[in-house]
Amino acid sequence: MQGVFEGSMSFKELAMHGDFGIGTLYDLDGELVELDGQFYQVKADGKDYPVNDSQEAPFADVTFFEPDQKILFNGSANQTELQRYLEGQMPSKNIFYAIRIDGTFDYIKTRSVPAQDRPYPTLTEAVAHQSVFELINQSGTIVGFWSPAYANGVIAPGYHFHFLNENRTAGGHVLDFSLKNASIAIDYTPQFLMVLPENKEFIQANLTGADQAELQKAEDDPGRGR
Amino acid sequence: MQGVFEGSMSFKELAMHGDFGIGTLYDLDGELVELDGQFYQVKADGKDYPVNDSQEAPFADVTFFEPDQKILFNGSANQTELQRYLEGQMPSKNIFYAIRIDGTFDYIKTRSVPAQDRPYPTLTEAVAHQSVFELINQSGTIVGFWSPAYANGVIAPGYHFHFLNENRTAGGHVLDFSLKNASIAIDYTPQFLMVLPENKEFIQANLTGADQAELQKAEDDPGRGR
Repeated sequence: MQGVFEGSMSFKELAMHGDFGIGTLYDLDGELVELDGQFYQVKADGKDYPVNDSQEAPFADVTFFEPDQKILFNGSANQTELQRYLEGQMPSKNIFYAIRIDGTFDYIKTRSVPAQDRPYPTLTEAVAHQSVFELINQSGTIVGFWSPAYANGVIAPGYHFHFLNENRTAGGHVLDFSLKNASIAIDYTPQFLMVLPENKEFIQANLTGADQAELQKAEDDPGRGR
Repeated sequence: MQGVFEGSMSFKELAMHGDFGIGTLYDLDGELVELDGQFYQVKADGKDYPVNDSQEAPFADVTFFEPDQKILFNGSANQTELQRYLEGQMPSKNIFYAIRIDGTFDYIKTRSVPAQDRPYPTLTEAVAHQSVFELINQSGTIVGFWSPAYANGVIAPGYHFHFLNENRTAGGHVLDFSLKNASIAIDYTPQFLMVLPENKEFIQANLTGADQAELQKAEDDPGRGR
């Protein structure tokens, strides 16, 4: 949130912590998706690029995806409806969940962000320059997490979804969608390892003003007026 | 805070995560100190008891203590003064610190809590029945942590100190002290692993109301009127 967009951990090392996840890239250059152990960078042109092992991510959430629950979702839902449905499936609001949704999306709205120059702006300022994409009839996968409310100082609470289409040509941070029928897998995650950056930028950042409202603004769809 | 005092991890397993730390015991039965890989339970009678490997802790913070900074503190200080001094030594307010203070305490005030019955009260209610001890001229060790403000949903921010005297006969959660000359070691800790309980009590607990003011009340010295 405070604009620490320098690299912190290489993708090679990140892969040792998980084969499934989301995050961002050096200079905030796009949206990161890790699926089945492969990293993809969705740049501000909306396209997917492979990621070099030696590149570094400033921030990522990853896990080894081992589903504890599988759901065949038959029906239609938009993002709000599906999220509400998934909350009804969770055995507790006190642990973390990794969530994989495979399906065909009638409609999916994503965003990505361009690389930022130094001195870095805050995340909210950077996201003001996001590119928004509206995709129709895309088969693909949502890679995401749900985090408990009490973790709000260390990770965004609630859902955080990134998308990758089946051809691995498009994707991004999910702002909205509509789907019919999906295969959903949920990994119950009762452990949380936070590896903090050790670069000068992070060491010197002022993190005392972390603001929940600003975070919502940076992660949500501006078009939905939440 | 919400009174989940059931066991969560055995001391045998906890020792695999660290040789230095603090915490509590099953039913909130006393204050836990781990020093040089040995666990001690300071019960509500103010005395130290060894801990059985198969016992379980509901909550603990532990680390493998590898000091990054050693300080010979020559002078006098009370708790507030020493804490302020230590903050001046920290290279950043954005990581965690494990802190070991060996010295002779002219005065040290500690507390412990008695075992709680089910249904468990909240931590604040339980601590209202704490026993307070005032010790004079005690050589011993403070085992503690300093945590950044942003971690406030998952761990108490700021300092959290437990004490063990040299003879291993007394100790507890530190409420106040006065010392002359001490040997201080600080372990810079940029990783944080949270292992959540998987028992029914935790799964069902309502953690949405976590209250910072209540936490301060439970951890601070009521006599200092903070």
